Amino acid sequence: MWEPPLFRRPDVMDAIVARQVMDLLIPDMGLRPVARCDALGAAPYSESSAFLLRPYLTASHRHALDLLSDWMTEAGMSVRLDPMGNLIGRYEGLTPGAPALLIGSHIDTVPDSGRYDGALGVMLGVECVAAFSRAGRRLPFAIEVIAFGDEEGSRFPASMLCSKAIASGVSAEALALTDQNGVTLAQSLEAFGLDPSRVAEAVRRPGEVLAYVEAHIEQGPVLESEGLPIGVVTGIAAQLRLRAKFVGTAGHAGTTPMNLRADALAAGAAGVLAVERICRDGAQDLVGTVGKFQTSTSAFNVIAGEAEIFIDVRASDRDTRNAAAEHIRQELEGIAEARGLSLEFVQVQDLPGCPCDPELTRLMGEAVEDVGVPARMLMSGAGHDAMAVARIAPVAMLFIRCEGGVSHNSAEQVTYEDTGFAARAMVAFVERLEARGL
Amino acid sequence: MWEPPLFRRPDVMDAIVARQVMDLLIPDMGLRPVARCDALGAAPYSESSAFLLRPYLTASHRHALDLLSDWMTEAGMSVRLDPMGNLIGRYEGLTPGAPALLIGSHIDTVPDSGRYDGALGVMLGVECVAAFSRAGRRLPFAIEVIAFGDEEGSRFPASMLCSKAIASGVSAEALALTDQNGVTLAQSLEAFGLDPSRVAEAVRRPGEVLAYVEAHIEQGPVLESEGLPIGVVTGIAAQLRLRAKFVGTAGHAGTTPMNLRADALAAGAAGVLAVERICRDGAQDLVGTVGKFQTSTSAFNVIAGEAEIFIDVRASDRDTRNAAAEHIRQELEGIAEARGLSLEFVQVQDLPGCPCDPELTRLMGEAVEDVGVPARMLMSGAGHDAMAVARIAPVAMLFIRCEGGVSHNSAEQVTYEDTGFAARAMVAFVERLEARGL
Repeated sequence: MWEPPLFRRPDVMDAIVARQVMDLLIPDMGLRPVARCDALGAAPYSESSAFLLRPYLTASHRHALDLLSDWMTEAGMSVRLDPMGNLIGRYEGLTPGAPALLIGSHIDTVPDSGRYDGALGVMLGVECVAAFSRAGRRLPFAIEVIAFGDEEGSRFPASMLCSKAIASGVSAEALALTDQNGVTLAQSLEAFGLDPSRVAEAVRRPGEVLAYVEAHIEQGPVLESEGLPIGVVTGIAAQLRLRAKFVGTAGHAGTTPMNLRADALAAGAAGVLAVERICRDGAQDLVGTVGKFQTSTSAFNVIAGEAEIFIDVRASDRDTRNAAAEHIRQELEGIAEARGLSLEFVQVQDLPGCPCDPELTRLMGEAVEDVGVPARMLMSGAGHDAMAVARIAPVAMLFIRCEGGVSHNSAEQVTYEDTGFAARAMVAFVERLEARGL
Repeated sequence: MWEPPLFRRPDVMDAIVARQVMDLLIPDMGLRPVARCDALGAAPYSESSAFLLRPYLTASHRHALDLLSDWMTEAGMSVRLDPMGNLIGRYEGLTPGAPALLIGSHIDTVPDSGRYDGALGVMLGVECVAAFSRAGRRLPFAIEVIAFGDEEGSRFPASMLCSKAIASGVSAEALALTDQNGVTLAQSLEAFGLDPSRVAEAVRRPGEVLAYVEAHIEQGPVLESEGLPIGVVTGIAAQLRLRAKFVGTAGHAGTTPMNLRADALAAGAAGVLAVERICRDGAQDLVGTVGKFQTSTSAFNVIAGEAEIFIDVRASDRDTRNAAAEHIRQELEGIAEARGLSLEFVQVQDLPGCPCDPELTRLMGEAVEDVGVPARMLMSGAGHDAMAVARIAPVAMLFIRCEGGVSHNSAEQVTYEDTGFAARAMVAFVERLEARGL
């Protein structure tokens, strides 16, 4: 486990960063983004006073954008709302109209959300611009901080509506999606003061976007287990969803001897352990999970005739993932055969994943080392807005350690210190991007 | 696998039985009981015309008793309805008022029942009496055929109400039980023309009952797997119900590496296989089943934080069963410890089981051999009325092979031939009881 050496204490670090960015000695670089997320963690920035819920195009979303707009302005940005409700703050470069580095994440939340999932990435963008702005420093490119209105899909049955909107537009089908009250996306945009007929204008024009970078809490336990405050994301995992159904023979738990059973629940259990074993013994970033186990009967005294397991397999590399899925299929067939059951094996979903841009990822690794942290490269098992934006620009991502890897839960926690490392790494990344040249 | 030898063809067998019981050459000894169950398999002997359902104290129960009463009378019995709605046909012995051998089973059914579970045992009692009656033969004891009104508990939330009633009476609490329409047992008895204040009169007086014998379909696959038409029941299994809950850590299926998981679903799966292995490697009649697997979350992409397995363990011998349960507890604790989870292990129910009377069981074994079938001794994994009656009389049981071991299902099947073996074995049992002396 990595421990920060003495000379990399945060106060010392601040001095190092100060040498990198003129006039930049900001003791609250980690504190302020966290405090701002906390400020947005309750009503009126939440629909509920009992827990945090900030869905897309709601009053809580509006309140959050009003406050965020002030923060962007204070940090030296000019602010606009695009036709999909994305709030965009622009910090102009040396030449007006220069292509922009986008720094973004989402401002919406799931129900009973933590305060940092999404929002922290937006606040880190603001913090990064504030550092340059305070130093009076302009870059050969603009920086735009973007707060996507929808990533979680907690209002409409779709996700990443807003990051997809800037990359590939919004379909008529998407505009007709309805929330749980039957209100369409188009109607919601209008109610928010936007013109649904103009959503195509949210799409960014070629050449406008230099790159996209997103900081996000890890939502997993890897950084914590290695004692690292931040890490560099190599890409978003390729994901397969599989369904395996064992069909045996239902029977009476009391009257059927062990040797005359074709117990589907027991076969399913063997299947679960096979998935676990194959993924544990596989490539480092391969993960496989059975999160759902379903049987045709569910009683103390009935031997289940059918059992179905729902399998999720992910890896950064698609071939690794596919090889694991094939290995799983073979093992499950062996289990079914040995136990005298039949097996139905179905692929439910294939999400191809998204590698981050290798060059930007290398720069991000150097930026992380600049602030004194070893550059731990890791896969993102969850999806992020960066996936959608990757269609129009090279992307990079930075992960921030979160306590226990807990996310989508009010117990979500980050530290000021870790967030400080992230803020300084973002600044260092911008400087390295500048140094590289356009 | 045992195959009936040529000289034991049913026709030859009938001749053998004919030599045992004077004038007894009844080619339909197997056919008639099956045909009578079939006759009772539809409306008006069922509440539904779509499937067989004959609950206690309903119109279908009444219709069935009317027909059964005719069959009992025709077989030479005097018929009465006891205060709990049990229909009792008495075939008097050599001396009026002699103690009675009770031959019985239940006439009620579960919903979508097969036609033979319970009813076949009653019809075999009638067939047995018919054989003696036709031969004009009286015994030193009476034979009473009893059709218990409730065993399955498909109307009131209790089971074996009627066999318990003749052994240990009916409590005030039982009389106050309500069906799904809020009608009490007491009200139902009245509506059936019975006097609920007299239910205590259903209890059999000491000395009245010589013994109890019950024929029943096996409801399991043992006899079929060994090619045997009938078998001798050594007792009803002692049963334990256990609940084991693994508590780990919920997590994101994509972001939590395999080595940082405390996956409760996987631990539960390992528990299922441990139960299976322990019971498979244990005593011959030990059975253990996980029929229910429940998780705190149930989604493709969530590592379950809690998983609960519901375990049923049975064996003819209570010590064997308890030792297996203790072994299971130890193994599950080992699984929890090795995986870094905690375990809650609870005993939900302890049913002590009921051995059949050794002497009567020996006689039943001889009776089975009398009709040319090896006497396969086997445990009953399911409960039967004999358990309740065992409180007041020695009991014996005979099992009849059923197709695929299937029961509580309209696919339940028995053959005329197997039922013929059962009928003749019942007759032979009565003769051996007679030969033994009282």
